[in-house]
Amino acid sequence: MEVPPPLVLKRPLYVPSKTLMGPGPSNCSHRVLEAMSNPVLGHMHPECLQIMDEVKEGIKYIFQTLNDATMCISGAGHAGMEAALCNLIEDGDAVLMGITGVWGHRAGDMARRYGAEVHYVEASFGRALSLEEIEFAFEAHQPKVFFIAQGDSSTGIIQQNIPEIGELCRKYDCFLVVDTVASLGGTEFLMDEWKVDVAYTGSQKSLGGPAGLTPISFSKRALTRIRKRKTKPKVYYFDILLIGQYWGCYGTPRIYHHTISSTLLYGLREALAHFCAVGLKAVVKRHQECSRRLQLGIEELGLEMFVQREDERLPTVNTIKVPFGVDWKKVAEYAMRKYSVEISGGLGPTVEHVFRIGLMGENATLERVDMVLSILNEAIQSIKQRAVKTERSKI
Amino acid sequence: MEVPPPLVLKRPLYVPSKTLMGPGPSNCSHRVLEAMSNPVLGHMHPECLQIMDEVKEGIKYIFQTLNDATMCISGAGHAGMEAALCNLIEDGDAVLMGITGVWGHRAGDMARRYGAEVHYVEASFGRALSLEEIEFAFEAHQPKVFFIAQGDSSTGIIQQNIPEIGELCRKYDCFLVVDTVASLGGTEFLMDEWKVDVAYTGSQKSLGGPAGLTPISFSKRALTRIRKRKTKPKVYYFDILLIGQYWGCYGTPRIYHHTISSTLLYGLREALAHFCAVGLKAVVKRHQECSRRLQLGIEELGLEMFVQREDERLPTVNTIKVPFGVDWKKVAEYAMRKYSVEISGGLGPTVEHVFRIGLMGENATLERVDMVLSILNEAIQSIKQRAVKTERSKI
Repeated sequence: MEVPPPLVLKRPLYVPSKTLMGPGPSNCSHRVLEAMSNPVLGHMHPECLQIMDEVKEGIKYIFQTLNDATMCISGAGHAGMEAALCNLIEDGDAVLMGITGVWGHRAGDMARRYGAEVHYVEASFGRALSLEEIEFAFEAHQPKVFFIAQGDSSTGIIQQNIPEIGELCRKYDCFLVVDTVASLGGTEFLMDEWKVDVAYTGSQKSLGGPAGLTPISFSKRALTRIRKRKTKPKVYYFDILLIGQYWGCYGTPRIYHHTISSTLLYGLREALAHFCAVGLKAVVKRHQECSRRLQLGIEELGLEMFVQREDERLPTVNTIKVPFGVDWKKVAEYAMRKYSVEISGGLGPTVEHVFRIGLMGENATLERVDMVLSILNEAIQSIKQRAVKTERSKI
Repeated sequence: MEVPPPLVLKRPLYVPSKTLMGPGPSNCSHRVLEAMSNPVLGHMHPECLQIMDEVKEGIKYIFQTLNDATMCISGAGHAGMEAALCNLIEDGDAVLMGITGVWGHRAGDMARRYGAEVHYVEASFGRALSLEEIEFAFEAHQPKVFFIAQGDSSTGIIQQNIPEIGELCRKYDCFLVVDTVASLGGTEFLMDEWKVDVAYTGSQKSLGGPAGLTPISFSKRALTRIRKRKTKPKVYYFDILLIGQYWGCYGTPRIYHHTISSTLLYGLREALAHFCAVGLKAVVKRHQECSRRLQLGIEELGLEMFVQREDERLPTVNTIKVPFGVDWKKVAEYAMRKYSVEISGGLGPTVEHVFRIGLMGENATLERVDMVLSILNEAIQSIKQRAVKTERSKI
């Protein structure tokens, strides 16, 4: 029995143009998109290795690190989370996951599969974790690895005390993994100064690169532990001693590990180049200004931010309470249908409770903030009126 | 201490145009490259899910399967190998790796990390595995999983007896994993008819798509085993029950698993659309004609194919013995420097012994065959003459 060629593939490719103001991906610039239509290069060609070197330098800059073991994982942000945990964890290791939304739970799921004994320390609803809460859990569980998201995109919470957590981890001889997928570019992050052992980030958020390559960096301290493992990391594909060899991190000859996507490298390279040209501080400042303006606008519209404390609000992914009686989904659909603008709903603990508005990369401009505020307001009013009409028609 | 922005990122991106006639990646068509500069889509947007559905149908066609569990892994071909093994293997399972080059060893490395008891059955040097050799190893090890590469790109060997291996696996209650990364498009592959349990392929070879998304399919029988696992697969990122849910494979609501690269989806979709339009049989016929012409040309040049038996030669990646006294590296460098054409050296057991010439996708045309033959000849003659001159100058 023969399987025929599918009819759907006879139709042309259809890709609408949208303004992506959800939790990510964000829009790529013309420069990044154009770069990705360049011809393919072999994964061991000198020109490809050169671009990898350039990307590596860019990643060191955005993380503010001098770590040799700085590279990309060929996969989504989740693959960065896997690589961080896979390389640090051995069977039976106690690990502690900080929870301010969904990502700590996701990390826990991964770590348990790697054979870790997983513990959680959970913040109060809508709050970041205090140092005391974390230290209390350290005392109880004596973790080998502590995981925390600097910014949790499901709740819009930012964890401001990473420097203190870094000290705490040294005190307890624990390795600190920080997920900066949603936060990088929207807030300061100083990997070396803050004694972070592993950091990874999303290419498709504030960086404005394509999804599919995940920047990651390991401290010398982490690398030493990894080199002393009793067993190999459970996954060849995430083995950073091998990946780092391919990325030329250890001063040894480059050895093929997998076929990297040169297409994504071009896009990420151009996104990093733009980011570096603008400068880290200016990028962070712009993201923060945009978020402040959004927060003011939200108040003016009579709406309320989900995160109560201003200093715990993530500037990149902003969570706004859905007003009582309003169906968030209809609001999001209105914005998409009428303006091709993405406003997102909640995730995990915030499902149905919040709108999520991403101000990242290309979309972190004051113009976009004003635009999304105006669309959000129009959409909510329209949905409310429709609801009233429906009620009346019932009477 | 501040890390400054890297100077290398102030230079423009440099991507030369090359003809990639090594073992892969192969060149992408203009259509595929253009598609990848389309705007980014969110990973849960209906238009993105629609493209995923189209890609899924295309994959079913190229594998000739009706398997529901047909999808892509967001990673290189190696991630496909990981996903196949990760989902099938539980701690202590006996697995058997067929070896006709390097890929069986790679699969063994991965499987051991997943806790399998790994055995190997190795073909004679330069030969495919006979059914007798495989059955002998089945008797000895009673494997739960058998892995074989249909085409091993390191040696240029094709395994023609997959249908018989499929029967054998049923007889021994074993699951059959077939790596078609280098072979698909160059030879027949009938997943369902041949009772293959897991197949995956490379997007960047005969398909002519971008690297970074790996088509994979699991039989109903494999899925049943996976659903009955005592433990979760060791890697969340490769868990095909979750990935398949995101890809809409099981008739359940789509749930976010990771952020897929819409850019790569566009490219793969267009590559599959072209492949389907030409038709599987025509694609295979063209690849085989090209390889035959290359083999004839090689003989005419007084060179010799590495694989002795004609019916064991992989049409997509052709291995040619390096003539005595010739430095393969200088030949490859000559071709690249003068013509921007990639001719590759060996890998693993064939290092320094062979040239590898890829005839895949865009490069599987008679014109390209004639071109690469002429370049190979010119390069070898030039290197020989230089060697003679150097010898003379010593006298």
